[in-house]
Amino acid sequence: MPSSSSSSQPSQVRAAIVGSTGYGGVELIRLLAAHPYVTVASVISSSNAGEPFAAGYPHLTEIRTDILDAVDPELIADKADVVFFATPHGVSTKLASQFLAAGLKVIDLSGDFRLKNRDSYAQWYKKEAPQQDELERAVFGMSELFGDEVRGADFVTNPGCFPTATTLGLYPAVKAGWIDPDSIIVDAKTGVSGSGRGLSMAAHFSEVNENFKAYKVHQHQHTPEIEQTLARAAGGPVTVSFTTHLVPMTRGIMSTMYASLTDKSRTTADFRELYNQFYEGRPFVRVRPEGTYPSTKEVYGSNYCDIGVLVDERTKRLTVISVIDNLVKGASGQAIQNLNLMMGWDETTGLTFLPVYP
Amino acid sequence: MPSSSSSSQPSQVRAAIVGSTGYGGVELIRLLAAHPYVTVASVISSSNAGEPFAAGYPHLTEIRTDILDAVDPELIADKADVVFFATPHGVSTKLASQFLAAGLKVIDLSGDFRLKNRDSYAQWYKKEAPQQDELERAVFGMSELFGDEVRGADFVTNPGCFPTATTLGLYPAVKAGWIDPDSIIVDAKTGVSGSGRGLSMAAHFSEVNENFKAYKVHQHQHTPEIEQTLARAAGGPVTVSFTTHLVPMTRGIMSTMYASLTDKSRTTADFRELYNQFYEGRPFVRVRPEGTYPSTKEVYGSNYCDIGVLVDERTKRLTVISVIDNLVKGASGQAIQNLNLMMGWDETTGLTFLPVYP
Amino acid sequence: MPSSSSSSQPSQVRAAIVGSTGYGGVELIRLLAAHPYVTVASVISSSNAGEPFAAGYPHLTEIRTDILDAVDPELIADKADVVFFATPHGVSTKLASQFLAAGLKVIDLSGDFRLKNRDSYAQWYKKEAPQQDELERAVFGMSELFGDEVRGADFVTNPGCFPTATTLGLYPAVKAGWIDPDSIIVDAKTGVSGSGRGLSMAAHFSEVNENFKAYKVHQHQHTPEIEQTLARAAGGPVTVSFTTHLVPMTRGIMSTMYASLTDKSRTTADFRELYNQFYEGRPFVRVRPEGTYPSTKEVYGSNYCDIGVLVDERTKRLTVISVIDNLVKGASGQAIQNLNLMMGWDETTGLTFLPVYP
Amino acid sequence: MPSSSSSSQPSQVRAAIVGSTGYGGVELIRLLAAHPYVTVASVISSSNAGEPFAAGYPHLTEIRTDILDAVDPELIADKADVVFFATPHGVSTKLASQFLAAGLKVIDLSGDFRLKNRDSYAQWYKKEAPQQDELERAVFGMSELFGDEVRGADFVTNPGCFPTATTLGLYPAVKAGWIDPDSIIVDAKTGVSGSGRGLSMAAHFSEVNENFKAYKVHQHQHTPEIEQTLARAAGGPVTVSFTTHLVPMTRGIMSTMYASLTDKSRTTADFRELYNQFYEGRPFVRVRPEGTYPSTKEVYGSNYCDIGVLVDERTKRLTVISVIDNLVKGASGQAIQNLNLMMGWDETTGLTFLPVYP
Repeated sequence: MPSSSSSSQPSQVRAAIVGSTGYGGVELIRLLAAHPYVTVASVISSSNAGEPFAAGYPHLTEIRTDILDAVDPELIADKADVVFFATPHGVSTKLASQFLAAGLKVIDLSGDFRLKNRDSYAQWYKKEAPQQDELERAVFGMSELFGDEVRGADFVTNPGCFPTATTLGLYPAVKAGWIDPDSIIVDAKTGVSGSGRGLSMAAHFSEVNENFKAYKVHQHQHTPEIEQTLARAAGGPVTVSFTTHLVPMTRGIMSTMYASLTDKSRTTADFRELYNQFYEGRPFVRVRPEGTYPSTKEVYGSNYCDIGVLVDERTKRLTVISVIDNLVKGASGQAIQNLNLMMGWDETTGLTFLPVYP
Repeated sequence: MPSSSSSSQPSQVRAAIVGSTGYGGVELIRLLAAHPYVTVASVISSSNAGEPFAAGYPHLTEIRTDILDAVDPELIADKADVVFFATPHGVSTKLASQFLAAGLKVIDLSGDFRLKNRDSYAQWYKKEAPQQDELERAVFGMSELFGDEVRGADFVTNPGCFPTATTLGLYPAVKAGWIDPDSIIVDAKTGVSGSGRGLSMAAHFSEVNENFKAYKVHQHQHTPEIEQTLARAAGGPVTVSFTTHLVPMTRGIMSTMYASLTDKSRTTADFRELYNQFYEGRPFVRVRPEGTYPSTKEVYGSNYCDIGVLVDERTKRLTVISVIDNLVKGASGQAIQNLNLMMGWDETTGLTFLPVYP
Repeated sequence: MPSSSSSSQPSQVRAAIVGSTGYGGVELIRLLAAHPYVTVASVISSSNAGEPFAAGYPHLTEIRTDILDAVDPELIADKADVVFFATPHGVSTKLASQFLAAGLKVIDLSGDFRLKNRDSYAQWYKKEAPQQDELERAVFGMSELFGDEVRGADFVTNPGCFPTATTLGLYPAVKAGWIDPDSIIVDAKTGVSGSGRGLSMAAHFSEVNENFKAYKVHQHQHTPEIEQTLARAAGGPVTVSFTTHLVPMTRGIMSTMYASLTDKSRTTADFRELYNQFYEGRPFVRVRPEGTYPSTKEVYGSNYCDIGVLVDERTKRLTVISVIDNLVKGASGQAIQNLNLMMGWDETTGLTFLPVYP
Repeated sequence: MPSSSSSSQPSQVRAAIVGSTGYGGVELIRLLAAHPYVTVASVISSSNAGEPFAAGYPHLTEIRTDILDAVDPELIADKADVVFFATPHGVSTKLASQFLAAGLKVIDLSGDFRLKNRDSYAQWYKKEAPQQDELERAVFGMSELFGDEVRGADFVTNPGCFPTATTLGLYPAVKAGWIDPDSIIVDAKTGVSGSGRGLSMAAHFSEVNENFKAYKVHQHQHTPEIEQTLARAAGGPVTVSFTTHLVPMTRGIMSTMYASLTDKSRTTADFRELYNQFYEGRPFVRVRPEGTYPSTKEVYGSNYCDIGVLVDERTKRLTVISVIDNLVKGASGQAIQNLNLMMGWDETTGLTFLPVYP
């Protein structure tokens, strides 16, 4: 059960969600409904403003009876204390500063403010990046790695789904210098919900079902985000091989990662101890017992990131297997975890539900 | 949000779960973890006693660190105030009375005490039924229909998954005399988790995936349970056609039901009004707006039973579509709803989480 | 193995496929590739003319290296002897007569020519029907029922997917007068490929996967087609209850059908004998042994329609379970079966491949 | 279309299938039903002898009406000219030599004769290997690589599913010396049918569906088979990192492979040309056009192995994506391809069917 950081219960924080009708938005609504200190005060959609929210999501019949608001910063500033952007790339670039200026806290689930190098953003996202000073202001909210920076911040850029699973899986080993950063190969797999609710052949049931495919090989826009974070651990530039695949399932990400040991005498037990120490006191990262490794269903619907580490004695490589629910720890759950940190609450507040299994 | 029935918070009730390693048991653990007044004090398994619970369910790593208890009534009576049976048919027949005698409350998720006619049980379950006086003592816990009987009871037999979806969908119309009970045809569909975690060809992925099949045609043991309940509405015996199908998905039940109107002038609007009135104040049953009807995913992971009613003007038949999550409203969720009623708490306590969508 | 009706091998028939880039079209290509007497001479697409066929269907890389033709009747008449329409409703209405006039045989997989009552077409399809004389000319190609009419015809309208499974399952019993036509209830289920390759929320993986839903309740345009055919068996108008559901799988249809016995002493064995006699010599309809009934995977990828018949002794109703692969027997396979009949070949020519299992 | 190697049609070869009731066996039956020169004369099962074949596989109702034979070498030698073993490991070790002695040709789909090093077999399979002279006699039937050795052989050991996808994807690059063999990392994914029809938690629908998991990490018995074949290309020992994952689908394997370039100036175009030349005249291997790569569904039900090669300019690594249907090219289809070679027929005989798509 959530515990507040002081003896008196906090007053309710009012949240607005821009892009509430996408999967990230509707997952924020699901999770925040169980949060003791947050009320969703405004659900916002540029395309469906004026329509009842539940018309597009009948599972929320009798639960969310409100009408979708338009994107009206003045109105939102009046209704809310914090704004979540669950929008496509390019939206928060234009809007975030307005809300910050109006005194709201901002948590951006899109990729706009993640890359601190504007050229890199332009290259991988094919859009113009936000201004450099705004980029600097946005704290990169990988909660377990940079929680200290998130605490008390008013503007957080929430990590991408693949970078969350991948970076949490590699950071301790890179930081410790136990693997060669130049040898890192990331073979990532995701459920279909990662591409959102928009219509495309890549999300057409008859094309995806009973199919396994690679996509954006060598070209995924999450690549520089992973490298940027690992560079902080390595103390210098890191370049990784990153390949993404689509799994015929709705939720879940697994990153299977390979890297060469710098000291070939290190064992699986050594790495387990390293990871356990690194993530001590961080309840959402679970390092699995030796000889075991997680599957995506074991974190389904929850905010956990589960990690298995194994040394291959034959090749002297480390294999790391890291799984998350892409919509929770990979998006909306981590966003709430960041809100908890920003507000000074326990980071688990409202996020303690168990995985849905089976 | 849960509300207690008095101003002071109730003291914790300690629960034991017999058959905790099946899907019904593990779903009880998931749901009770979010219940403010219940602690799971003992997880019990006749086959795996002595092993760590999480060994069989790694998604509960670091969450349930306890060891599985054996089925030892004396020990359990010491540890717990209420016992859930999430066991195969035939187990509670032998054990329930011991726990009742020891002063515990009992909620039985198996079929043993549902049928009040011992011959009927023997015929459909191919086993000997419990004693008649014990059968009489067990209150049939279809919460929305017989909640008044459940309130304050100490022994509840929890309804089956198909009967829950089916009976909630038909009861108001039969009770009102608006459909002919002899004309009822129930075409039911279930996800694979309904058959449990046991190994069988009927649960083999390669046999079930990309497949749709009927099973136990005319022979499902839930048939007499449906008829027994509808007979209470009709005021006399009811015989229905009941056919079950297996859907290549894990969770969810839909019952599509057909019956002839007794007064052919009645409209969809009439039936919606009837159902809305019948289920007024019962938040877990949602009657869908006219022209719409629910899908199973819209109640996934939640305790809702969603119902659509439509009159076919061409054939003067009523079509009712009723969906539940078989492991929640069809099993563990309704069991907790019954516990809430037995304890005098609000029936929604601990059960207010939203459906997981998508 | 296919056998020709004469000692000399027929010369190759050249086929053109209008709408070749839809699922019906590409399935015709798959099946005709194994047909000994047919060559696909032109693949046609109004929207993608000029592009390489395999660009949209990479599984045909190095197999179909041709460029998509435009819809040019003159050109097609020059290249082909027979034209398949695998097009949305409304296309063949305008084009079929041109090809017939040019001396080609026409097989229409769309719904345009199936309903012989123009008002009925307008009501259910929301479009203007073809001219009455053209409607009369189009032979309704339910191969096992009206094969004699198909033999030698030059214009065949291919049945819908649901009507194929449903009508083959009901026709013998209605024809014999053994069930009451007014009591017929059809609960139908289909895989997602039935709605084609077009983009829609109804085919979005994350919305359909792990979901079971009803759709077009009481409103499916296949309803009058089923009634029209059953009326021929009953010798008078028939009205059925018809409901369709979407299964999270790609291929397969099951119709579960219920009807009251006219003579309550008839048994499952009686019905099996009736059906076996009715379908004797028709290899694509398999009546299952007593006590068994088919699943959709058991006909996957094949031209079979498998049927189980069971009398429910408790309710004196007949249950019929009928399955097909919607893209084969429900569309392209039956179209080729009809071509075989039109050409005077054995109806199984090129269609003898086994179901893909598992 | 199949073409015979001489003007006169070959007489029918009679095949027996030991282990016919597993997925490999039943796929042999499906494929051989379309083979012009082979008749399945005996279906054999040690566990179900005496039962009708179709009882366990109702999709073959009216198609295979024969009774399962026992494993009786004398009887089989009388009925058949060639024996397929589609059995678990350890069976053919004991039986193959008997059939060879009786003058039959033998094709073994199990792993017993693949590894030529007996210690390696013992280490990875935990069983005693066949005698060394028998091992030497068994030709390793990777058709596109060692077809010349298969031609005319009487004893072929059919490759494993993972080794087929993996080795076909790596062989040309290793052979040319264009990648560093010591840098090879193979991230493999398979559908569930790969583990057969036996019951296990790893094939339980509710555990596998909507789940993605790794298994046998660093421990899969196909590892030494891959290394043995790549060693022939490299001219010396090769050690690879090999990890396998389970995809929630029935059929299909993808191997995603990574390796460092030996000459960093080589481009994707260079590799495509290399692969195209290497596989010229081998119709079952399709090297995809530049910038594209295959998905598993694009070879579903067919004997193709489709390969995409891409150089990552950032990391100077080669990525190879190779897909097969594990039951066809990964087992029964390649077994028939080998039979064709053994008999001197065109290798595509009976295998020219198209992928089933969608």
